[in-house]
Amino acid sequence: MNKLNLSLYLVLDPELCGGSLGMIETARAAAQAGVSAVQLRAPHWKKRDYAQCGQALRLALAPTHTPLIVNDHVDVALAIDAQGVHVGQQDLPVAACRRLLGPDKILGLSISSLDELAHAELTLVDYLGVGPVYATQTKPDAAPALGIEGLISIRQCCRHPIVAIGGIGLNNIAQVRATNVEGVAVVSAICGQPDPAQSTKALLCTTDHT
Amino acid sequence: MNKLNLSLYLVLDPELCGGSLGMIETARAAAQAGVSAVQLRAPHWKKRDYAQCGQALRLALAPTHTPLIVNDHVDVALAIDAQGVHVGQQDLPVAACRRLLGPDKILGLSISSLDELAHAELTLVDYLGVGPVYATQTKPDAAPALGIEGLISIRQCCRHPIVAIGGIGLNNIAQVRATNVEGVAVVSAICGQPDPAQSTKALLCTTDHT
Repeated sequence: MNKLNLSLYLVLDPELCGGSLGMIETARAAAQAGVSAVQLRAPHWKKRDYAQCGQALRLALAPTHTPLIVNDHVDVALAIDAQGVHVGQQDLPVAACRRLLGPDKILGLSISSLDELAHAELTLVDYLGVGPVYATQTKPDAAPALGIEGLISIRQCCRHPIVAIGGIGLNNIAQVRATNVEGVAVVSAICGQPDPAQSTKALLCTTDHT
Repeated sequence: MNKLNLSLYLVLDPELCGGSLGMIETARAAAQAGVSAVQLRAPHWKKRDYAQCGQALRLALAPTHTPLIVNDHVDVALAIDAQGVHVGQQDLPVAACRRLLGPDKILGLSISSLDELAHAELTLVDYLGVGPVYATQTKPDAAPALGIEGLISIRQCCRHPIVAIGGIGLNNIAQVRATNVEGVAVVSAICGQPDPAQSTKALLCTTDHT
C-alpha cells in the first residue's frame, strides 16, 4: 500500500448526495478534483445496498487510486475488497477489526476526547478520526464539539495520524489545518454542493489566513 | 460439526427479553429445556453491544452445545466465533457470506416466496428460513404472511432443510410441524414468557392434533 494520504477525506452522506448514484458521482468528481480518501457511511442502509454501492464506488475511485473506507461494516469491506474500515467507539473493537481485516487494510477509529485517546489501541489503527471539532448536523448522535482548543489538546498528546472531522467547511478549514493535523474530513462541504469538484478544489486551495 | 438440529429454533428479541441480560437468561433456560438453535437478532443495536451479548450467549449456550446463529452481521459472527449467520434478502449475498465464513459455519437464508426460493443459491446455505407463516408483530418489515398453504407450496418445491417462522406459537405449532418442515422458529412464544423453560417444553411436547 502507498503511504496513506488523509489530507482531504470525504465522508459520503446518502441523503445529501441524493442516494447511491449521487454518492458515486460525488465521489468520482471529488476524487478527480483531489480528495485523497472516501468513506462510505450509510448507517440506515441494509448491507445488500451497502455492498452494491460500495462496489460501484470502488470502481469509480480506481482510476484515481483513491482508497475507499467503509464505515462500521468489516464484512461489507471484505466482501467488496475495499481498502479499509472506519469504526467508532460503539462499533466492533479495533482488535477484532484488525484480526478480521488482516495487516494491510486501512483501519481508522473515531475518538472524541482525551479519555478515548488514552484507551485507543493505537498500534492497531492507521489513523484517528477526531471530532466533532464544530457542532454538526450530519451526525445526530455525535459527541459534544471539541472546539479548536480540544483538537489542539488531542494533537499535543498524539503523534498518530489525525483526521479532524465535524462541521468543517470553507469558512473554518484553515483554522483546523493550522492545528497540524494530517487530514481534514468533510461531509456537507462537498456532498450536496452544486459542483462537488469545484467545492473540493476550493477546500484544497484554502490556506491558513488565520 | 454435528448434524444441524433445527427442530425448535429460538430467535431472541431484545425488547421482549428486556435487554442483553434477559436475552442471555432466556437463551440459557430455553437451551436447557431443549431448544436446538438460538439466533441473536437485534437490528437496532450497534456492533459493540452485539458482539458483547453474542460472546456471553456463546458461553451460556456452550454447556448444551446449542449453536448460536448471528443475524445479518458476518463480521460479528466471525469476531465472536459464533456457529453461524442468518441473512435475509437485503443483507449481504450468500455467496459473499459463505466466502467470508468458510465452509464449516452454518449459513441460513430467509425466503418468503417461491420466487425467492428459485433465486436462492441453495448449495451455499445450510437451511432456509421460510415465512412469515402467520402475521407477526416481532418483525415490522416482514413480507405478507404465506399461510400454511404457502408453506406447503414451498416445502413441495424444496428438499433443502426448512425452518418455518412467523407468528408460530403453542396454538398453531402442530399445524406447522404437520407440513413436514425440519424446524420451527419462535420469538414471542418463548421471549418475554413468564417461564421460558416451561414455554419451551410446552412447544416441544405439542404433537400434531390437527
